[in-house]
Amino acid sequence: MKIREATEADFEKIWPIFHEIISVGETYAYPQDTSIEEAYRLWMLFPRKTYAAVEEGQVLGSYYIKTNQAGPGSHVCNCGYIVSINERGRGLATSMCEHSQKTAIELGYKAMQFNFVVATNVGAIRIWNRLGFDTVGRLPKAFNHPARGYVDVLVMYKWLES
Amino acid sequence: MKIREATEADFEKIWPIFHEIISVGETYAYPQDTSIEEAYRLWMLFPRKTYAAVEEGQVLGSYYIKTNQAGPGSHVCNCGYIVSINERGRGLATSMCEHSQKTAIELGYKAMQFNFVVATNVGAIRIWNRLGFDTVGRLPKAFNHPARGYVDVLVMYKWLES
Repeated sequence: MKIREATEADFEKIWPIFHEIISVGETYAYPQDTSIEEAYRLWMLFPRKTYAAVEEGQVLGSYYIKTNQAGPGSHVCNCGYIVSINERGRGLATSMCEHSQKTAIELGYKAMQFNFVVATNVGAIRIWNRLGFDTVGRLPKAFNHPARGYVDVLVMYKWLES
Repeated sequence: MKIREATEADFEKIWPIFHEIISVGETYAYPQDTSIEEAYRLWMLFPRKTYAAVEEGQVLGSYYIKTNQAGPGSHVCNCGYIVSINERGRGLATSMCEHSQKTAIELGYKAMQFNFVVATNVGAIRIWNRLGFDTVGRLPKAFNHPARGYVDVLVMYKWLES
C-alpha cells in the first residue's frame, strides 16, 4: 500500500468509496444524495491537496487537506478521510492520518482540526485519540443521524509542532 | 434603528465597516487585506441571507446567516456580525443577534453555532453568553493575533428550539 497525490483518473475509484460512505449518512455532513460532480468539487477541487491510498492499481482510501480558516486562522488545516468499506480494519485511517500530519507540516501548517466528528463514530474517535488528537469541543445534537436522531459532534484538534 | 435585509446598494456602506474591522485583524478569520470583491462574496453572496441595521439612511452594522454544515448537519446555522466602530456600545450586536435568532427559526434552523470566536474578544463573548450561547469548544492557539500572537478560539452554540 502506498499513499500518493490523487490524480484525475483516481477520482473514478475514489467516487464509489465516497458514495458508499456518504449514502449511509452516519459520519459526514454531506447530503446522502451528493452527486458525483459535487463530490468532485468537495474532495478534489476545494481542498489544497488530495491523496489516495493505492495498492495494485486499486484505490483503498483517500484523504484531503485544506486550510481550515483564512487569514489569522490559516495556520490550522483540516483533513477528511475515507476508507473503502471492504478495506476496514487494516489500519488505513491510521496510515492516512499519519501521512496527512507529515503533509500538513510540509505545507507549513502548525495544527490540524477535525471540525465535525460524529460522536457515534467511536472507531474514528479512538483512532484520532491514539494519534494524539484531543477532543476540544462537543456540539450538542449537531448531527441528524439516520438511525439515532440528533447526536452530538466532537471537534478534535492536534498541535503539530513539537 | 431598523434591521432589514441588505440590498446591493447597502453593500457600499457595509464594506467600510467590514474593512475597518478586518484590517485590524483581531476578531475575524479573514485576511487583513481582504478585497472589496472578496468581501462581497463572503458577506453578501455565500450566506443564505444578509441583513443591515439602518438608521436615517446610514448602515450601522450588518449580519449574515448561512447553513453551517451540509446534509445531516444542515439544521445548524452560522452567523457573523459587524458593527461600525463609531456605533459601539449601543447594543447593536445584541439587537442583531436577537434578530438573527428569529430569522434562523423562520428559516427552519434548530441551532446556531459560532465557529470561531477569538478568546480575546471578551466583549463579544459576554454578549453571546448573555444571549444564551454556551462555550462548547476551545481551539488552542487557533488564531494568530496581531498583538498577542497565537491565542485560543471558542466555539459557541445555542439550541434555538425551546
